[in-house]
Amino acid sequence: MYAYLGKGILMPDRLRIGLLGAGRIGKVHATTLVQRVPDAELVAIADPQIEAAQRLADQLRVPHVSPDAHTILSDPNIDAVLICTPTASHPALIADAAAAGKHIFCEKPVALDLESHDTAVAAAEAAGVKLQIGFNRRFDANFARMRQAVIDDEIGQVELLHIISRDPAPPSLDYLRTSGGIFLDMTIHDFDMARFLTGSEIVQVYAQGAVLIDPAIATVGDIDTHVTLLRFANGAIGSIDNSRRAGFGYDQRAEMLGSRGAIQASNNYPNNVVISTNKIVQRDLPLNFFMQRYVEAFANEIAAFVRSVREDLPVAVSGADARAALAVALAAQRSHTEQRPISLA
Amino acid sequence: MYAYLGKGILMPDRLRIGLLGAGRIGKVHATTLVQRVPDAELVAIADPQIEAAQRLADQLRVPHVSPDAHTILSDPNIDAVLICTPTASHPALIADAAAAGKHIFCEKPVALDLESHDTAVAAAEAAGVKLQIGFNRRFDANFARMRQAVIDDEIGQVELLHIISRDPAPPSLDYLRTSGGIFLDMTIHDFDMARFLTGSEIVQVYAQGAVLIDPAIATVGDIDTHVTLLRFANGAIGSIDNSRRAGFGYDQRAEMLGSRGAIQASNNYPNNVVISTNKIVQRDLPLNFFMQRYVEAFANEIAAFVRSVREDLPVAVSGADARAALAVALAAQRSHTEQRPISLA
Amino acid sequence: MYAYLGKGILMPDRLRIGLLGAGRIGKVHATTLVQRVPDAELVAIADPQIEAAQRLADQLRVPHVSPDAHTILSDPNIDAVLICTPTASHPALIADAAAAGKHIFCEKPVALDLESHDTAVAAAEAAGVKLQIGFNRRFDANFARMRQAVIDDEIGQVELLHIISRDPAPPSLDYLRTSGGIFLDMTIHDFDMARFLTGSEIVQVYAQGAVLIDPAIATVGDIDTHVTLLRFANGAIGSIDNSRRAGFGYDQRAEMLGSRGAIQASNNYPNNVVISTNKIVQRDLPLNFFMQRYVEAFANEIAAFVRSVREDLPVAVSGADARAALAVALAAQRSHTEQRPISLA
Amino acid sequence: MYAYLGKGILMPDRLRIGLLGAGRIGKVHATTLVQRVPDAELVAIADPQIEAAQRLADQLRVPHVSPDAHTILSDPNIDAVLICTPTASHPALIADAAAAGKHIFCEKPVALDLESHDTAVAAAEAAGVKLQIGFNRRFDANFARMRQAVIDDEIGQVELLHIISRDPAPPSLDYLRTSGGIFLDMTIHDFDMARFLTGSEIVQVYAQGAVLIDPAIATVGDIDTHVTLLRFANGAIGSIDNSRRAGFGYDQRAEMLGSRGAIQASNNYPNNVVISTNKIVQRDLPLNFFMQRYVEAFANEIAAFVRSVREDLPVAVSGADARAALAVALAAQRSHTEQRPISLA
Repeated sequence: MYAYLGKGILMPDRLRIGLLGAGRIGKVHATTLVQRVPDAELVAIADPQIEAAQRLADQLRVPHVSPDAHTILSDPNIDAVLICTPTASHPALIADAAAAGKHIFCEKPVALDLESHDTAVAAAEAAGVKLQIGFNRRFDANFARMRQAVIDDEIGQVELLHIISRDPAPPSLDYLRTSGGIFLDMTIHDFDMARFLTGSEIVQVYAQGAVLIDPAIATVGDIDTHVTLLRFANGAIGSIDNSRRAGFGYDQRAEMLGSRGAIQASNNYPNNVVISTNKIVQRDLPLNFFMQRYVEAFANEIAAFVRSVREDLPVAVSGADARAALAVALAAQRSHTEQRPISLA
Repeated sequence: MYAYLGKGILMPDRLRIGLLGAGRIGKVHATTLVQRVPDAELVAIADPQIEAAQRLADQLRVPHVSPDAHTILSDPNIDAVLICTPTASHPALIADAAAAGKHIFCEKPVALDLESHDTAVAAAEAAGVKLQIGFNRRFDANFARMRQAVIDDEIGQVELLHIISRDPAPPSLDYLRTSGGIFLDMTIHDFDMARFLTGSEIVQVYAQGAVLIDPAIATVGDIDTHVTLLRFANGAIGSIDNSRRAGFGYDQRAEMLGSRGAIQASNNYPNNVVISTNKIVQRDLPLNFFMQRYVEAFANEIAAFVRSVREDLPVAVSGADARAALAVALAAQRSHTEQRPISLA
Repeated sequence: MYAYLGKGILMPDRLRIGLLGAGRIGKVHATTLVQRVPDAELVAIADPQIEAAQRLADQLRVPHVSPDAHTILSDPNIDAVLICTPTASHPALIADAAAAGKHIFCEKPVALDLESHDTAVAAAEAAGVKLQIGFNRRFDANFARMRQAVIDDEIGQVELLHIISRDPAPPSLDYLRTSGGIFLDMTIHDFDMARFLTGSEIVQVYAQGAVLIDPAIATVGDIDTHVTLLRFANGAIGSIDNSRRAGFGYDQRAEMLGSRGAIQASNNYPNNVVISTNKIVQRDLPLNFFMQRYVEAFANEIAAFVRSVREDLPVAVSGADARAALAVALAAQRSHTEQRPISLA
Repeated sequence: MYAYLGKGILMPDRLRIGLLGAGRIGKVHATTLVQRVPDAELVAIADPQIEAAQRLADQLRVPHVSPDAHTILSDPNIDAVLICTPTASHPALIADAAAAGKHIFCEKPVALDLESHDTAVAAAEAAGVKLQIGFNRRFDANFARMRQAVIDDEIGQVELLHIISRDPAPPSLDYLRTSGGIFLDMTIHDFDMARFLTGSEIVQVYAQGAVLIDPAIATVGDIDTHVTLLRFANGAIGSIDNSRRAGFGYDQRAEMLGSRGAIQASNNYPNNVVISTNKIVQRDLPLNFFMQRYVEAFANEIAAFVRSVREDLPVAVSGADARAALAVALAAQRSHTEQRPISLA
């Protein structure tokens, strides 16, 4: 006969979470939640494409699904929601979730314009719920270590920043039609990273962009390659190097020069094995995309959100952080269009 | 109202596992099972130190604990057991688990002598249950990649093998008193790795050992440092370089020279950030010990066991594999004592 | 009795070279010539500071010195000259050397304005003498390998270029007063490298600069840090990241993204030894400055010049190459002043 | 008119050197001397194959050649000789050079037996001439840095040493017939390196060898692959991993574990450029053989010899050093033959 009379199985203190949106990033967060975050429980999934929701629920043994996000928002057993729906729906869902008293984790960007952003964030603040935005890279071991080096003054005052951020291959044209463009959909991560790593605000931006990979990308009004120059409030200068196609995989690196040293993060690889033949010295390609590279970052990100809610701590990435990145992205877009440096007020 | 009427929540097909032994490695496997292996369920933990069992059960929300392994062995709801008890109890527990029809994952070594080993393995075979032995390093991404390179003939015929395997610090004298000695407790992993990587049997062994770290280790009849030379059936030559104290962390590397190339695996690090100051170029220390380095390997190992049972496939590391490593370990011990090369029959 | 009746000792075919300017770079080239270029002979050194010339001549066993460059230019035994004097004197010395029928190797930049540059280069062309400009980095093994990868189409069409080029410490204010400014004195190397690596012309430039290291640098009208954005004729985008102070040494790296791959060159180190202690994993600093990093590049550069003259081949770095880099440097300077992108005609 | 009235051109103080043996290593040292060692002058070359001597003299502008080494030994203008003849002639040439009062740099090994070795070294000592032996690897930047780390106590007491030393391809059978075998011809370098790096004497050796590359090597009584275990006087344990065929190039690495850290040296490469394509991440092969890898080491070695003579300092690698390596090589040979560990008296 077993001796155990424990409380654990009742799990009264696990955060009960509902997922809104069972698409690509929704699946990533759902899997992370179930497999990597023991303090939380994914109890429901909502997606208008109910089959996608049910498939994911079956895989992960999630008990409830619904075609309607509001089923989850009105469920008194749900403590918090992860908003992983298309960007256009973010502001309204944030407002509704806030009104329902749910804590909110929302994928970036909150909105494609500052007014919608501000309205949504204000709703969450008014309701007194937590709102964390999905800038997952802050939780990556390499970038977190870089940030720590700056905080610990290991390299002195930051003077130069360079971010390389490239996807393995361009997304579909369908995706690009509604993504808001490269600056809002892709570079926004790098703008957040630039603020995070340096600890300084971006005050000016100049973007030099091009369509070099696929002319079809121009037909939907986007570009696929750019270098964007940043000026920080502390005087530092930065550059972001974006491409929709690195070819060899997910190219996610950064480096800073400070007054007393430099710091550099390189890509992550599935293994570190090196093979030398009579022709070449070789290793396997780096991790292919964000689902591989940021597995641990996603786990850390969701764990941080769960901890913020359970322990009533400030969130790691706030609405104000997301607003700052959005403002820079909009300025970069304008810089690219007007072909001149744009200052942020 | 939720739409879901799914089957997942009933989890009829998850492998129900009992853990025997809530010590260091037991905790590792329990955590791995709960967090990383969705196809299995840890339903009970047994340990004579019932507080340790209960503490672990609380942490991981495992419903049952017992001070007695046989409570688990006699539970008809348990499909399989993980034997993580002290080595001396392995043979009897294997026999009992086999008699109870439980599939078995047993930590290495199965036994400290060949006869006990053989009896235990025979019991599992007679009962028709799966028996997988815990040589976790085979499931490490680096070493698995090396093995794949040999299988895929990327470097031709293997001629030289070198394994570096060093712990960050010596274990307690208490542990060393019953561990069976460095060859049976530590190098046995490397003997298994040597067979795994080359795909060839070890036919001769010569060990050169010493007590260089702590004279107290000599007082319990053990050594703390050695290099052991291997001869393989295919003519290749190998060496294993063991120390109980690498100081900078867990030193787990290997390399092979083949007739058409070479292959090399290095250590894993918590991040790849490099900091350059006016004095030095530096990075953080490698992962400190097996709980960090082999997180993924443990997950792969347990997942492989679960898959073997559920899909009735051969196990990845068999009793015969464990026997071969044990035989080499015993020969190495004898070589060290007699200060001469020892051939394996 | 010796058997040898050879011709070698007479050395009739070694190129006889005179050095104009015994300053820092003059010493580098003189040493290179004597120790690394067997097909040439340094026969005379001229410098108004005759003691510097004589000291160098003593060290390297050069038979002749003069305070006046024209002693060398009028020496019929001299085949070629290396112009290593201050930039302001370059155009006149090129013209005079050309008039004297001497082949010319001239340090960069030829001039600080395009008109002087053109006049000087035209003089060399009219005289039919070789004129090679000192963009030594083209002869560095790393950058030459990158160029070769582009030529051999190993990475497809170049889309993005990033050059990091930083000195270990700022030069003296005295030097800065006459250097022409960071774009003409330092970045000009990187503009040449950008053209060389991509094989494409720079058509637009935008420079974002700052004084971050030492306010005194502003007092002489210069900056010490900048990132400069480049647009190439083939559509590619580039950035150059310059600082007068890397602190840890000479930071000379580059990378390119192409349509089918990427290529990256890192710094060179005095050794590759890695030391791991219980605190950190470390290695020695990279090579400190150009005298260390470009030892081999200087040897290759001078050897290439000697070969061009002796075998009547086109020079590796022409007056037209130097003009292109100068034009970009002047545009970058203007971009920095006017804070806007500048197109090159 | 030139101002110079210097002394340099007379070069009264350059060490005048004669080369005995214009074969492979003779060419290396001759080239090094002429191009890299300004304090010495190569004035004569002797080789029974006079055409080889003359060809080399022509290339390097050396004024004298002879078919007979004694022409050089009896030349009063010669200060020192480099003995680069076949090993069998080393002892007699050392004796003769010593008798002629010439300082001696002799390639390793001095002899293939200890008696001849001792007689030759005694002759040099009796004559009061410098005798440096050609263990060039001590002068390599990586290995010198490792040695320095031990001297500076950066890693504490050395406990484990591992040397990897492999040629790109086996030498000709003709060479192997007279080389003295792998231990005397190849591993002797590693035995010297083992003593040099650890600063401790080798007291026991056990060699496990094989013919894995080419059965023809067995026909001349040699092996092509071995791992040799070392025991040092200070208790440390070492292993040397030798192969005649690394395939990818010259594999020259070493590492040590100490009581407070570890140190590791890897191979050198012609450039550090990394290319990533959609298939693989690759770099060029390491430097191919000793003429590439040890260019700088050879220059440092000869410069050290020249300095020892000119400044009357002890040589960096003495006859006693060479004797110790020879004794270990002979013991290793015996260990391989007798298949047992051999202690050194």
